[in-house]
Amino acid sequence: MELKTRERTMRYLEVRKRTEALCAPLQTEDYIPQPVADVSPPKWHLGHSTWFFEEFLLSKVAGYQRFHPEFAFVFNSYYESLGARVIRTNRGNLSRPTVDEVYAYRSHVDNHMTGFLDANNLSDHDKEVLQIGLNHEEQHQELLLTDIKFILGHNPLFPAYGDFQEGQGEKEKKAYLDIPSGTYPIGHSGEGFCFDNELNRHRVYLESFSISPNLVTNKEYQNFIQDGGYSDFQFWHAEGWDWILSNKVEAPLYWHKVDGKWMHYTLQGLKEIDPDLPVTHISWYEAAALAAWKGERLPTEFEWEVAALHFPYGERWEWTNSAYLPYPGYKKAVGALGEYNGKFMINQMVLRGGSIASAPGHVRSSYRNFFHPHLQWQYSGIRLAKDL
Amino acid sequence: MELKTRERTMRYLEVRKRTEALCAPLQTEDYIPQPVADVSPPKWHLGHSTWFFEEFLLSKVAGYQRFHPEFAFVFNSYYESLGARVIRTNRGNLSRPTVDEVYAYRSHVDNHMTGFLDANNLSDHDKEVLQIGLNHEEQHQELLLTDIKFILGHNPLFPAYGDFQEGQGEKEKKAYLDIPSGTYPIGHSGEGFCFDNELNRHRVYLESFSISPNLVTNKEYQNFIQDGGYSDFQFWHAEGWDWILSNKVEAPLYWHKVDGKWMHYTLQGLKEIDPDLPVTHISWYEAAALAAWKGERLPTEFEWEVAALHFPYGERWEWTNSAYLPYPGYKKAVGALGEYNGKFMINQMVLRGGSIASAPGHVRSSYRNFFHPHLQWQYSGIRLAKDL
Amino acid sequence: MELKTRERTMRYLEVRKRTEALCAPLQTEDYIPQPVADVSPPKWHLGHSTWFFEEFLLSKVAGYQRFHPEFAFVFNSYYESLGARVIRTNRGNLSRPTVDEVYAYRSHVDNHMTGFLDANNLSDHDKEVLQIGLNHEEQHQELLLTDIKFILGHNPLFPAYGDFQEGQGEKEKKAYLDIPSGTYPIGHSGEGFCFDNELNRHRVYLESFSISPNLVTNKEYQNFIQDGGYSDFQFWHAEGWDWILSNKVEAPLYWHKVDGKWMHYTLQGLKEIDPDLPVTHISWYEAAALAAWKGERLPTEFEWEVAALHFPYGERWEWTNSAYLPYPGYKKAVGALGEYNGKFMINQMVLRGGSIASAPGHVRSSYRNFFHPHLQWQYSGIRLAKDL
Amino acid sequence: MELKTRERTMRYLEVRKRTEALCAPLQTEDYIPQPVADVSPPKWHLGHSTWFFEEFLLSKVAGYQRFHPEFAFVFNSYYESLGARVIRTNRGNLSRPTVDEVYAYRSHVDNHMTGFLDANNLSDHDKEVLQIGLNHEEQHQELLLTDIKFILGHNPLFPAYGDFQEGQGEKEKKAYLDIPSGTYPIGHSGEGFCFDNELNRHRVYLESFSISPNLVTNKEYQNFIQDGGYSDFQFWHAEGWDWILSNKVEAPLYWHKVDGKWMHYTLQGLKEIDPDLPVTHISWYEAAALAAWKGERLPTEFEWEVAALHFPYGERWEWTNSAYLPYPGYKKAVGALGEYNGKFMINQMVLRGGSIASAPGHVRSSYRNFFHPHLQWQYSGIRLAKDL
Repeated sequence: MELKTRERTMRYLEVRKRTEALCAPLQTEDYIPQPVADVSPPKWHLGHSTWFFEEFLLSKVAGYQRFHPEFAFVFNSYYESLGARVIRTNRGNLSRPTVDEVYAYRSHVDNHMTGFLDANNLSDHDKEVLQIGLNHEEQHQELLLTDIKFILGHNPLFPAYGDFQEGQGEKEKKAYLDIPSGTYPIGHSGEGFCFDNELNRHRVYLESFSISPNLVTNKEYQNFIQDGGYSDFQFWHAEGWDWILSNKVEAPLYWHKVDGKWMHYTLQGLKEIDPDLPVTHISWYEAAALAAWKGERLPTEFEWEVAALHFPYGERWEWTNSAYLPYPGYKKAVGALGEYNGKFMINQMVLRGGSIASAPGHVRSSYRNFFHPHLQWQYSGIRLAKDL
Repeated sequence: MELKTRERTMRYLEVRKRTEALCAPLQTEDYIPQPVADVSPPKWHLGHSTWFFEEFLLSKVAGYQRFHPEFAFVFNSYYESLGARVIRTNRGNLSRPTVDEVYAYRSHVDNHMTGFLDANNLSDHDKEVLQIGLNHEEQHQELLLTDIKFILGHNPLFPAYGDFQEGQGEKEKKAYLDIPSGTYPIGHSGEGFCFDNELNRHRVYLESFSISPNLVTNKEYQNFIQDGGYSDFQFWHAEGWDWILSNKVEAPLYWHKVDGKWMHYTLQGLKEIDPDLPVTHISWYEAAALAAWKGERLPTEFEWEVAALHFPYGERWEWTNSAYLPYPGYKKAVGALGEYNGKFMINQMVLRGGSIASAPGHVRSSYRNFFHPHLQWQYSGIRLAKDL
Repeated sequence: MELKTRERTMRYLEVRKRTEALCAPLQTEDYIPQPVADVSPPKWHLGHSTWFFEEFLLSKVAGYQRFHPEFAFVFNSYYESLGARVIRTNRGNLSRPTVDEVYAYRSHVDNHMTGFLDANNLSDHDKEVLQIGLNHEEQHQELLLTDIKFILGHNPLFPAYGDFQEGQGEKEKKAYLDIPSGTYPIGHSGEGFCFDNELNRHRVYLESFSISPNLVTNKEYQNFIQDGGYSDFQFWHAEGWDWILSNKVEAPLYWHKVDGKWMHYTLQGLKEIDPDLPVTHISWYEAAALAAWKGERLPTEFEWEVAALHFPYGERWEWTNSAYLPYPGYKKAVGALGEYNGKFMINQMVLRGGSIASAPGHVRSSYRNFFHPHLQWQYSGIRLAKDL
Repeated sequence: MELKTRERTMRYLEVRKRTEALCAPLQTEDYIPQPVADVSPPKWHLGHSTWFFEEFLLSKVAGYQRFHPEFAFVFNSYYESLGARVIRTNRGNLSRPTVDEVYAYRSHVDNHMTGFLDANNLSDHDKEVLQIGLNHEEQHQELLLTDIKFILGHNPLFPAYGDFQEGQGEKEKKAYLDIPSGTYPIGHSGEGFCFDNELNRHRVYLESFSISPNLVTNKEYQNFIQDGGYSDFQFWHAEGWDWILSNKVEAPLYWHKVDGKWMHYTLQGLKEIDPDLPVTHISWYEAAALAAWKGERLPTEFEWEVAALHFPYGERWEWTNSAYLPYPGYKKAVGALGEYNGKFMINQMVLRGGSIASAPGHVRSSYRNFFHPHLQWQYSGIRLAKDL
């Protein structure tokens, strides 16, 4: 899908502005902390997504002057090809550059990028890198919002982020869908952008199965808790059981029992839990335990992709029972861009769907998100499946 | 496959004796240490495999007196259903019961078991548990030998275990096998014993691929080392790279560079490395890195199972690029026996094949071994594959 | 020493203003990070020193409304008597309250405090608490400055704090002073304020000793480094040796070898090291190792206090060879104020003197500072002594 | 105190035999484990104390052949001068050399040592090293017994060591002794052996104080527990409070509440607690907390040494409120022997007295034992003091 010059610049600016719009409700102080290793400071997201365009496009343009010689060092992430990086757990210690300087960095890069894009002599490789850069920034928008939630939601003052609705309850429970066995195509097709991990499109044989068109709700999850779900090891994987014991986990992230009633922190502040809303902020261990308690299971990512034609999705990332592994014929790109996906293909589980934190138009049925099984800070939920 | 009474007792005694035969070369002191959490003391293996029969069979027999009231506590492993267990990392702190007492425990249980078996009124469930118990003990025989190697091989005196040959070099390099795409059956079939994780037998669609009939040799692995394989992050998964840096890994386990020459500890003591022998004692990270360095990849467990009709295997566990996950229709057993496999189905990678430490007749083409990707202490090696 | 009403208010405001003056060069972002557990965010120092007056004085005043009901929780430190505290290592995760809100909190408390002080009906206990509160804030001024240095000095951009001179070189080397043996008085005397750990004044018998009127300089410390001081275990305590190996310590904190030349980060930015300046930012282990290398030793705190009549001090905290322990007759106060000093009297070493970060008039010859022996982030230096 | 040749050999053999006598009740297995870093395997004590004589005396004798070239490596402890040591926490992983080989090593060295001693041409330095070696072995006898107790006492079977009486209750409570202020001599005097840390003898000024002639009993300690001593932070040093919370400490080591009654593991097995016996196996933190609960304090090591003329001691090590630091004029020996004491003079607290585990004749009033304040595995108890 070729973008024309004008559209390309428009799309670039739109993505870039959305990142800044997400930060509009923040105080300067909110841009700084890194409360746990997986959560990055908002300031870092702003700088890192900008650095991507400077590093992989502008720095190749004759005469371009980098905004600051040290920023490549400060805002690089895991791109080992490109020299020493700030150790990940140290990001929250960096008070400088200031937030204003980071916004100035964004402006500098945006000015040069619009010039570069308007000049309209991008090579095919440039166009591809641009696409990756924009999708990369959209991924950071999602992390930005969930990281902001983590920072504010772990503050004893429970400050609200703003008037951001985290989802709509599904009142209607529908019957499970039966999917017959057979060979199905999996992976991205068509002309639109996709990440390398969605390729090659290939065939997968599925035994017949049944899958819920609804997500598990807060009410159902409360039943699991009330039924002793967190104190019966039979529902848990061994590492999940160790994880809840070591971390004293007794409920989803952000849930607090206040005067005997379950509350949860949302982007609107601390609120009562809506029983009809899909449960969220759970680890894969918790998703798998709830499924075991119900006598069911999580779908594989392949089952999910095939079934997703028949139900709506995108409001909640859904843990699958598939490990994050390469598809047949997967090739990682040469050089630093090749570090994007392939190097993470171990010890992580695939999530499918999308969430209220995903950028508009960012996800698709072949999209593969992935996290370690103990992580809770994304809008992660549960769809149940069972064998037929 | 129904065993007749006499055969059943014979088989029981054969398995039990083999465990003790493996310990024959040991000094009393060698039965005690637990140098790292994953390596259990030989004494513990002797007791734990015995406890299995006492717990799941004899304790159900009217009038049976347990050998010692505390041994269930001391020799239980991860069976959470059955009460407090000795914390795994504490096993090496237990000097009592003595080795002699553990052998007395084995005799006690063996005497009662032969009586029980000869009486010939086993229920179908008893027969099934017996089968599991014997296969369970065979699995512990393999761990026993690799744990002994770890204990002796980490002693600065490098004591030999005995005249145990760890493998035969393959001189002849054969051409890769091409396997056409198609739907293939996967999982155990037939009447013989299998573990629950080998079921259900189901269909898997494979895209065409090519696979080596040979394993990667020590010589090829040395080339990888010499070519800077351990210092170029491009070959490594991110967590593998962190693992080699944190642990200063520069070669397979047991390899030592002595006066510029690679030596390795074997069950026969410290020896020069045989270049033609398949490389072994490597982590999944190392296997995947070598494959990346060669521009190839590891096979999936499904590719392996299909291709295994065409090459010999069983001398070396082979890392696959498949995560350890349940097959369609997998059901875990009710109660403590259900803890055998299912609870470990996260964060582990599948190995196929078998090794010189495997009990005779123990493995088969559908057999699924599994370990965390950083572990090196098994006889683990590499078979390469590539897309067609 | 009784302060009159007007003087008392003046003194209060002077101390409070100095804290804010120290923060004047900061950007909002600099107030937030807590890079290591021992270093607190500047914002926290501002709030905590304010909370002290609110908690121990204003909250006792009829009709006083706390500025915010949660601030006692957020800005408490180690006062276990007063309920749950923010876990110390989490301080850097708190983006809220904002810096502006903390300054508003300061104004609120200052307004009420000046009213309270001007009303002139303080009880003796109130007067004592006020004195402690002001000296407490002065102590936090010192920590504030050294914490700011740590935050800026660990930023890869090495931002300068301002035009702050960290010391003056001593050109002239003077002869060691000989102090005869005898019984000497130790501890605070007179009417001025002192902390409880400076009491009781008591007698100590000293054997004769010799002590340097000069501090060890950067040049002498460089000689120690060049002579292999960090690679010969003979100079080190066993725990010090482990500490330098585990942390790869090879020089004082803030020293960097750039193109073969020693530079160090100062409040004025990265500069060449002045050889004549007293060495600073060293741990007790390093101080003791340098002394061992010279064949001398550190003075005890009692030797120091006796000898301090004969040389100037106050530019550099000086590690002594005395552990931080109570004096004869030491009594800790009842309640939360009793937690000030006594509970830290284990595993810490005494420093004497004062530093360029100490508040004017804050230190005296009986003043006892104390830190764990591995800590380097204070302006800590070395004075040598030897037996006669 | 010069020993004559015959007496010297007798003394040597007596010490050496006592070590082996202490091991007589052990099973081979008991010689192996190292359950925590501070507790060494009995086998290691046997080898290490032997290595001392081989290394510092026999290896200097012309023609002496070491028993085994690797044993210096295996049985060295913290003597950094003498090359790579076995990392301390790895000692429990060493099954070889076997216990029999270690006893053979002892015989070999004893044979050569008696020859060496009988030849009667020891230099003064040799005589001094011999004295140190014998006292060193006596220290290891004490550690040996307390390490054996730890190994057996942490075994779920609670095996008895033998018929070893751990102390005699003191029925009679005597009045506190008042000691007047004044200058007192401290440190070793006379001709007998002492360690370097007992020198120089020097003067210390003591303010007047009062000290108990009795030790705190189990009954008094139970009162402390019952009165909530472990749940009120006011009695605890900050690091002690963290220690009891992190380690869930609620009673002395080896105490177990069984059916509502306090039992404790002793060398005779699990027994009811004798209320009149001095409490033992407590950390310095616990000793200090009990003293604070009583409104008293621990004596300093100087107060203890002066008062010890007036009460019996030697049945229980007594925590003092003195940090382990050098005396005036302390000089550490040149070379490896200099590593004996001086390098540990940080972060440890002094214990005075002696215990039922101390070798006969080993302790004296100037003897300084020392451990980190959290350690409980020695026979450590409490004597109270107060200011006058």
